[in-house]
Amino acid sequence: MLKFDEKEQIASVRGALALRPRIEEIVDAVWDAGLKNLCWLGIGGTWASAMQAVCHMKERTSLEVFSLNAAEYLTTGDRRIGNGTLLVFSSVTGTTSEIVQAVAKAQAAGAKVLGFVDTAGTTLAEKADICICYPKNEQLKFFMAADRFLFREGVMPEYEAMYAQFDRSLPEALAGVEKSADTFGAAFAEKHMNDALHYFVGAGALYGSTYSYAMCYCEEMHWMRTKSIHAAEFFHGMLEIVDEDTPVTVFMGEDRQRPLTERVVRFLEKVNRNHTVIDSRDYALPGIDDAYRYSVSHLVTHAVTNRIDAHLEALSGHDMEIRRYYRKVEY
Amino acid sequence: MLKFDEKEQIASVRGALALRPRIEEIVDAVWDAGLKNLCWLGIGGTWASAMQAVCHMKERTSLEVFSLNAAEYLTTGDRRIGNGTLLVFSSVTGTTSEIVQAVAKAQAAGAKVLGFVDTAGTTLAEKADICICYPKNEQLKFFMAADRFLFREGVMPEYEAMYAQFDRSLPEALAGVEKSADTFGAAFAEKHMNDALHYFVGAGALYGSTYSYAMCYCEEMHWMRTKSIHAAEFFHGMLEIVDEDTPVTVFMGEDRQRPLTERVVRFLEKVNRNHTVIDSRDYALPGIDDAYRYSVSHLVTHAVTNRIDAHLEALSGHDMEIRRYYRKVEY
Repeated sequence: MLKFDEKEQIASVRGALALRPRIEEIVDAVWDAGLKNLCWLGIGGTWASAMQAVCHMKERTSLEVFSLNAAEYLTTGDRRIGNGTLLVFSSVTGTTSEIVQAVAKAQAAGAKVLGFVDTAGTTLAEKADICICYPKNEQLKFFMAADRFLFREGVMPEYEAMYAQFDRSLPEALAGVEKSADTFGAAFAEKHMNDALHYFVGAGALYGSTYSYAMCYCEEMHWMRTKSIHAAEFFHGMLEIVDEDTPVTVFMGEDRQRPLTERVVRFLEKVNRNHTVIDSRDYALPGIDDAYRYSVSHLVTHAVTNRIDAHLEALSGHDMEIRRYYRKVEY
Repeated sequence: MLKFDEKEQIASVRGALALRPRIEEIVDAVWDAGLKNLCWLGIGGTWASAMQAVCHMKERTSLEVFSLNAAEYLTTGDRRIGNGTLLVFSSVTGTTSEIVQAVAKAQAAGAKVLGFVDTAGTTLAEKADICICYPKNEQLKFFMAADRFLFREGVMPEYEAMYAQFDRSLPEALAGVEKSADTFGAAFAEKHMNDALHYFVGAGALYGSTYSYAMCYCEEMHWMRTKSIHAAEFFHGMLEIVDEDTPVTVFMGEDRQRPLTERVVRFLEKVNRNHTVIDSRDYALPGIDDAYRYSVSHLVTHAVTNRIDAHLEALSGHDMEIRRYYRKVEY
């Protein structure tokens, strides 16, 4: 299989899960000290992850929880951020300029900052009040922190049982998804690599990953034109430009917003012959109860898009690491 | 001028401004009774307006203020909504199914609901706890309510002076914008009516109108393919697919997020020859101080897009009232 080292990948997810005792210690200390609100800060792909964490928490929490785009915070500001705020961010490079500035601004306003940074020693790893340095697995790191808050709030009684299953089975289960999605990924890449415009639709905690896949993978890494739309919004405009040939992919997860994507699929079945459904439910997760799958649906569909990416890159010959402008052109 | 009845339009805006004493009475009663949070509910175009109101308020408020997508609320829920919540919505038809259900759900949770409905006697006009029935001017109605809250919170000391100017001069000023933008609108429509994909970028309180123009006007009414992107996010993916010929329109307003769009324009000037800037600053608003223009920038750019719409419709022969699917096909 292209770009797939099973052992390495399993070890990566296992290592992320092993961060949980440290995350619990941090969240518990914040919770016990008293929390006014919880802000998930990001930009681009990390903003997408922030939206995912917020959507996931909103199913249960009464806390004031919100996502915040770093560049918007730097301009418009946000007076909710101050003493009693925990601000959480993630960064791969540890140097994204908007995040560096936003963290400083939030700290000056009195917020405490928890950073998940891939690389130790970088600016953001040093600036965060509390930092966990571990590569990749951004959503998993966010969701572990989010779920610990839900547990402490008393609205996630299954926390221990669920994470016991994740610890035991999630790494292998996700690797298994990649293996079983490889043929599909190759076929999808071949069929859609030259689409003039591809639409992606998602909802719930998968909306963030839909937005991110369209923008941070297809646009930024493959230079493919895409548009992402929330399934809730699809029927309030976008539907009118769908014809028989329009390429549309719907990401379906297993959280409470699943019916919104089902509605889109029903519509597409009537009017379109060029849509694809990537449904987490189609993939087995051995060792994980059905009741817990909603928490990891976005990791399942991400495992599927990993296979699309590997084949797109191989077929197009376009290296996903190349950027035309980002961090190259001044603006 | 096509589709432009100056007298009627001036009367429409003047009538909306005349709702202010009633809005003040409503907001003051809510404020005096004590408010836990303020939720702007919407879907599609009205969700876009909700995002605008929230962004506008966030420049100053410490209140918990948030926008909520009705379909997301119906599935994921939102435990912040309850006693002490004022939920504000707008509806043209008064029958949008997601809003009807979301209003009932919020009321059951204890929220008080203020509706701006175009037509009296419709379902939503009857369901709202408090309803103001007056056609069109959705953003203006929302901003009048938002600004009254800011005034009562003590963070908008210029409220009276600013609205005195709006009352006196805004109706004629906006009509003047339409007249001076007509030649531009015709040229834009002619140049871009056959674009395979047109990108729209905006920020601040104009992001909602950018999203809405791309989706509710271009897609829904003109059946043109578009993508909208927040200027803050433009540099985290979308920039990579911009080449010399890519059609991009940037909406620029005068609120604190203006620098985010200026950055996009600087980038486009380097790599692209097919972009358009629609800048509220280019249009005179006689009788309105520069300091107040940020509050109505989105109305200025909307006046400009009105002219594009009129010419697009005339050139394409595609009646903006026609829908292929919405409220016609079951899904």
